[in-house]
Amino acid sequence: MTARLHAHQYGKAETRVVRIVRDTPRHEIRDLNVSTALRGDFAAAYLDGDQSAVLPTDTQRNMAFAYAKEHGVSSPEAFATLLARHFVDDVVPVTGARVDVQEHAWVRVLVDGVEHDHTWVRSGQEVRTASVTADAEGTTVIAGLKDLTVLKSTGSEFRGFLTDEYTTLPETSDRVLATSLVAQWRYAGDDVDFDVTYARVREVMLATFATRHSLALQQTLWQMGEAVLDAVPEVVEIRFAAPNKHHFLADLSPFGLENPGEVFFAADRPYGLIEAVVVRDGTPDAGDAWTRSVGAP
Amino acid sequence: MTARLHAHQYGKAETRVVRIVRDTPRHEIRDLNVSTALRGDFAAAYLDGDQSAVLPTDTQRNMAFAYAKEHGVSSPEAFATLLARHFVDDVVPVTGARVDVQEHAWVRVLVDGVEHDHTWVRSGQEVRTASVTADAEGTTVIAGLKDLTVLKSTGSEFRGFLTDEYTTLPETSDRVLATSLVAQWRYAGDDVDFDVTYARVREVMLATFATRHSLALQQTLWQMGEAVLDAVPEVVEIRFAAPNKHHFLADLSPFGLENPGEVFFAADRPYGLIEAVVVRDGTPDAGDAWTRSVGAP
Amino acid sequence: MTARLHAHQYGKAETRVVRIVRDTPRHEIRDLNVSTALRGDFAAAYLDGDQSAVLPTDTQRNMAFAYAKEHGVSSPEAFATLLARHFVDDVVPVTGARVDVQEHAWVRVLVDGVEHDHTWVRSGQEVRTASVTADAEGTTVIAGLKDLTVLKSTGSEFRGFLTDEYTTLPETSDRVLATSLVAQWRYAGDDVDFDVTYARVREVMLATFATRHSLALQQTLWQMGEAVLDAVPEVVEIRFAAPNKHHFLADLSPFGLENPGEVFFAADRPYGLIEAVVVRDGTPDAGDAWTRSVGAP
Amino acid sequence: MTARLHAHQYGKAETRVVRIVRDTPRHEIRDLNVSTALRGDFAAAYLDGDQSAVLPTDTQRNMAFAYAKEHGVSSPEAFATLLARHFVDDVVPVTGARVDVQEHAWVRVLVDGVEHDHTWVRSGQEVRTASVTADAEGTTVIAGLKDLTVLKSTGSEFRGFLTDEYTTLPETSDRVLATSLVAQWRYAGDDVDFDVTYARVREVMLATFATRHSLALQQTLWQMGEAVLDAVPEVVEIRFAAPNKHHFLADLSPFGLENPGEVFFAADRPYGLIEAVVVRDGTPDAGDAWTRSVGAP
Repeated sequence: MTARLHAHQYGKAETRVVRIVRDTPRHEIRDLNVSTALRGDFAAAYLDGDQSAVLPTDTQRNMAFAYAKEHGVSSPEAFATLLARHFVDDVVPVTGARVDVQEHAWVRVLVDGVEHDHTWVRSGQEVRTASVTADAEGTTVIAGLKDLTVLKSTGSEFRGFLTDEYTTLPETSDRVLATSLVAQWRYAGDDVDFDVTYARVREVMLATFATRHSLALQQTLWQMGEAVLDAVPEVVEIRFAAPNKHHFLADLSPFGLENPGEVFFAADRPYGLIEAVVVRDGTPDAGDAWTRSVGAP
Repeated sequence: MTARLHAHQYGKAETRVVRIVRDTPRHEIRDLNVSTALRGDFAAAYLDGDQSAVLPTDTQRNMAFAYAKEHGVSSPEAFATLLARHFVDDVVPVTGARVDVQEHAWVRVLVDGVEHDHTWVRSGQEVRTASVTADAEGTTVIAGLKDLTVLKSTGSEFRGFLTDEYTTLPETSDRVLATSLVAQWRYAGDDVDFDVTYARVREVMLATFATRHSLALQQTLWQMGEAVLDAVPEVVEIRFAAPNKHHFLADLSPFGLENPGEVFFAADRPYGLIEAVVVRDGTPDAGDAWTRSVGAP
Repeated sequence: MTARLHAHQYGKAETRVVRIVRDTPRHEIRDLNVSTALRGDFAAAYLDGDQSAVLPTDTQRNMAFAYAKEHGVSSPEAFATLLARHFVDDVVPVTGARVDVQEHAWVRVLVDGVEHDHTWVRSGQEVRTASVTADAEGTTVIAGLKDLTVLKSTGSEFRGFLTDEYTTLPETSDRVLATSLVAQWRYAGDDVDFDVTYARVREVMLATFATRHSLALQQTLWQMGEAVLDAVPEVVEIRFAAPNKHHFLADLSPFGLENPGEVFFAADRPYGLIEAVVVRDGTPDAGDAWTRSVGAP
Repeated sequence: MTARLHAHQYGKAETRVVRIVRDTPRHEIRDLNVSTALRGDFAAAYLDGDQSAVLPTDTQRNMAFAYAKEHGVSSPEAFATLLARHFVDDVVPVTGARVDVQEHAWVRVLVDGVEHDHTWVRSGQEVRTASVTADAEGTTVIAGLKDLTVLKSTGSEFRGFLTDEYTTLPETSDRVLATSLVAQWRYAGDDVDFDVTYARVREVMLATFATRHSLALQQTLWQMGEAVLDAVPEVVEIRFAAPNKHHFLADLSPFGLENPGEVFFAADRPYGLIEAVVVRDGTPDAGDAWTRSVGAP
């Protein structure tokens, strides 16, 4: 037989851990979705059904809850790092670990203008993400966000593009530009104030999106990446995937109405999808830090 | 043959209308998902395939865009009212119309602490809803929201309940209470400042959820309904559907750890579902204003 | 205070019960999603926080599992009936119960053309539904299905419709007709072979959709309803909600290509939504059997 | 400035193309969701906003429709190959193209046991996938499927695993094993009867899942991969991502009931996630054929 087991990993996905800090009347909350994946020589489990090197995924789930109690959750990045290092350092067969955390933010309810101590509304704005890869060599921390939907109602155009016999798109010098942003950025090290830096990267991206005139979504992504690397020295690489959420001008001419950029149809599918990776010059390679899945690429 | 056509309606669902106001450099945005349904004697379309009384759903979609231009969108409730009245008053075969609008809110991006003129982030918090029913008798306006996820980390208990041979639930005097609230409230008339009143109802519900001790989600819903009717005289009825989004205390005892209300597992399914209707005494019946669908109850 | 508690109900939604019958090597599977809701005088739970009449939703979940063991699942309708009657007959404060069951079908894996004894693939075709309402007067059984996506590539037209100043739709004498059907039918009694009858109703609806020429989706729904009432005497009422899943002819004329009904763009939103209720003459009223929710209409 | 544009690509995602063949009364249907991504030197679009090398994503959408007419859809793999080669061979700035196609299958409605000529029900079973990468060197074809949910009610155990201080999972020698399979396999070349081979790979995977006793999902994936490579010589590599859809035995002991593998709670989250890559010995490297996204890893 000529089949050979190549890359493999296994873990527990989407453990929903909510951590409340209640040491004072003003509680704190962190709401996480934790996925862990272990790498190492688990070939016997696949080839022979021998599980003696396999720490159950159920145990990985237990650990997420136990660690939330024992170590708290200072940030999704720090929590993911603790878990990933534990797997590599303390579980013998494990040579590499990947921990992905999604965080849902909550904002305090205002009562008569005052923040309430123990009641929150879920902020549906973006999902914060952290992806930590650990092995014997060290730890790589990637922070990020997804589902950050932004829109500008002017300051965007799309002209001068290549045309061929299948091109029917008219040029436009003023359009709505909207995307549901996915951004992930890699830190040079793990000595980072993750919450502060997250807020700063987010702020720089949004300010760039708002204030820079856009000749294309491609240009806007580049400008956002460049601005982040410029403003946040801890970041060495940033990756974007940005669906162009098309807002088509409604054709009101059959009804004798003009439509100077006022009424739009927000389309679902298809959508443009623009991607870019921006790196700081001289940055070392990330190894497998960007590899989330070996089976579902 | 003994079959008979009973209730029927038809319309266009989920027309995604985005309206930008750009009369000044500070643009405004309203982002709507509009569904219209017409009622009347359309029996010939069903029984004989005769479409002569049927205004196409495509036309209903066109109208949503045209009206957004001609009349603007002062609020989802007002926009739905305009459309519903037009159908009933101007399209001969239509005797009743139901217009449902969902509104997605956008918040301005802050650049150096200042709100940007034409760039927004989509606020994923709740979806605002408006449901307007019109017929020859008049117009009924129902406002509402859905997907407002709220959580309190203390101030909630559940004890003293009925038990039988299938009951295993322990009592608790301190738990996490969370729900993804659906609330809809009916106005006495349509002379309402819909945006201001919406904000007020939302504020009263959240303050009540935060500040009142909860003996059960049932009690909390009642308290929220009572508080809204008390504070907002325009509202004559409010309906709630509240999934009890269970946060189960993680069992850390196998690891020698205590867990005094600090680490929770947020479960997906199943969930408790609590519903209540609270009305102002002496309120007239709503007719079919609460009937959205005749075919999918 | 002038607020008054009106309709209310509470229960456990979406308990995922999978029942395997393994009395012989050829196993059987039924895969259910069970939602229960109790009605009665639970006012004290709302008004005073007094839970002494409230059977916890957790207990309702337990019962779904226990009943699946004790009584088996002969059909979703029968299982829902057992649960609903138990609540009304055995739990003192309960005066009415509503049980909704969704069933996911599984089909046996074929190995060398032979059905396997204990391995299945989930049939993603439609979701079967059962909704049973019980009170002191009796029990009403509604069967149904949803997400049955059907398409015919010819034999459908849409012409002769009403036009106004907002109408731009051209007439068509040959189009793709597609819908994701929701249908629910009420039985006269509960002495029905539910599995056999379900299959028969589904077969009649599909055959009618396939073989009858369609002048509009309205007409097709009527024809399907009429055919079901004609063929299945146990059914006294059937309700339809049918989104018109538009397939727009792609405009290939800019590329010098004709498109005689061959290439279509399948659109997501908006969509027409056609609803109809067809009843057998002389059928008694259904009471609240069609009322699923009192809070989220 | 030290920022540098690294990998980038852009394209049109999720163009919904439905192709009807109506040359005879017995129509055929292929229902595709097409995503195209172009690679090449588009740096000027990012860095300077210069779009002169950028073929609009709108044009890519047009091409999907035009090609469906001109060339038909003999299989998703063949259609993706045509599109990908066109981009690389005919659009000057493009040096590489990636085309992902999802296909939804339809099955003919039976009328009195006979397949209907032009009416279908959508088979919700699995989604078929094809991913084709083209560049100057050649073309790589990856076929696959996702959302194939399979379950076996016996013939599966999980024992002898590694334990640590966080392990609480009991061993089991008889459990339900279920997964929603993602599988993708790479062909050695493109001289393949794609429809026939797809059916064969699917059949081999299902038969292996059904008939081989499972000591762990890991072992089952390996066995499936090995069996496919053994049975289908055109396949040189296969990748799996398999969520372990946990079916937990309901604890009925509080009610005095035994539960010998009969009643299960189907859990949503968390879930085990097992991944494996199985290759044929001597297979050349796939280059970037497995890289779908450069921005959203």
